[in-house]
Amino acid sequence: MATETQKHLVAASEKYAESFDKGHLASPPAKKYLIVYPVTCMDARIDTTAAFGIDLGDAHIIRNAGGNAKDAYRSILISQHLLGTKEILLIKHTKCGMLTFSNADARKIVNEHQGKEVIGPEFDFEPFGDLEEGVRDDVKWLKENGGVVEGAVVSGWVYQVTDGKVKQVV
Amino acid sequence: MATETQKHLVAASEKYAESFDKGHLASPPAKKYLIVYPVTCMDARIDTTAAFGIDLGDAHIIRNAGGNAKDAYRSILISQHLLGTKEILLIKHTKCGMLTFSNADARKIVNEHQGKEVIGPEFDFEPFGDLEEGVRDDVKWLKENGGVVEGAVVSGWVYQVTDGKVKQVV
Repeated sequence: MATETQKHLVAASEKYAESFDKGHLASPPAKKYLIVYPVTCMDARIDTTAAFGIDLGDAHIIRNAGGNAKDAYRSILISQHLLGTKEILLIKHTKCGMLTFSNADARKIVNEHQGKEVIGPEFDFEPFGDLEEGVRDDVKWLKENGGVVEGAVVSGWVYQVTDGKVKQVV
Repeated sequence: MATETQKHLVAASEKYAESFDKGHLASPPAKKYLIVYPVTCMDARIDTTAAFGIDLGDAHIIRNAGGNAKDAYRSILISQHLLGTKEILLIKHTKCGMLTFSNADARKIVNEHQGKEVIGPEFDFEPFGDLEEGVRDDVKWLKENGGVVEGAVVSGWVYQVTDGKVKQVV
């Protein structure tokens, strides 16, 4: 029995496929030497295509809670070394949920919901206390850890969910 | 000195912000009990908003190489337990790059590019050999590992990059 969400997905997909004409796009991003490659938050309020000017086929987009670089590392390696992207834009955003809890808070909530300890004290939810510092720390981590391709430009940005603007931090 | 990609981001953002009127959206996804929560690939060819009918603010979107459940786990925990999502749709896609290499291939390529061993044999790039089996394995892993919220519906899908259609696998 399909859920309402599943029905919605199927209906949206059918409508989308009716006028779909991008079946020819290749796997590596088209802007091979001019890659927009944002590591952006999974936040529901961010429309990466419109807000960051990314057309279908242009760039890899990684999204996870907090726009976290470490969590994106496997995908970054694959994007850069196997699919040839040259540049990384790391984007976090204002009013991010990751600014509002600690590891201990999150662990307690999950374990209480589940009625048993499914998350131990070693698990890192990667929260951060300051937005711009979080961006700087992640860019630093990417530059220093040895996996980012030689010559890649890595920059860090903040997207403002209240006015739709983006500003460069580093 | 800004790169062409950075200039493109700033220009797209300025244009977007001019007509932006969604500054009021809250952090938890609006469809609180009807959550579309796709774990979708970072592939440049997938427009999640249009293809899956997700409006701004509706759903969390996690994107990583291969639409990988393990890599998305931290984000899934945060989405479900701290931001109240109830349903998970895991989506992989045809012609995925993850079907085309092994862990040994990827490790060799990265280390050759970097001119030293930055990736050891323990690193898992999470490639998979069969698309539908990959979807089933990830859904099974999510259901069995104890962190997904009680009562959450987890379904698995394949998006077809050549015709824009989606079909349910599990």
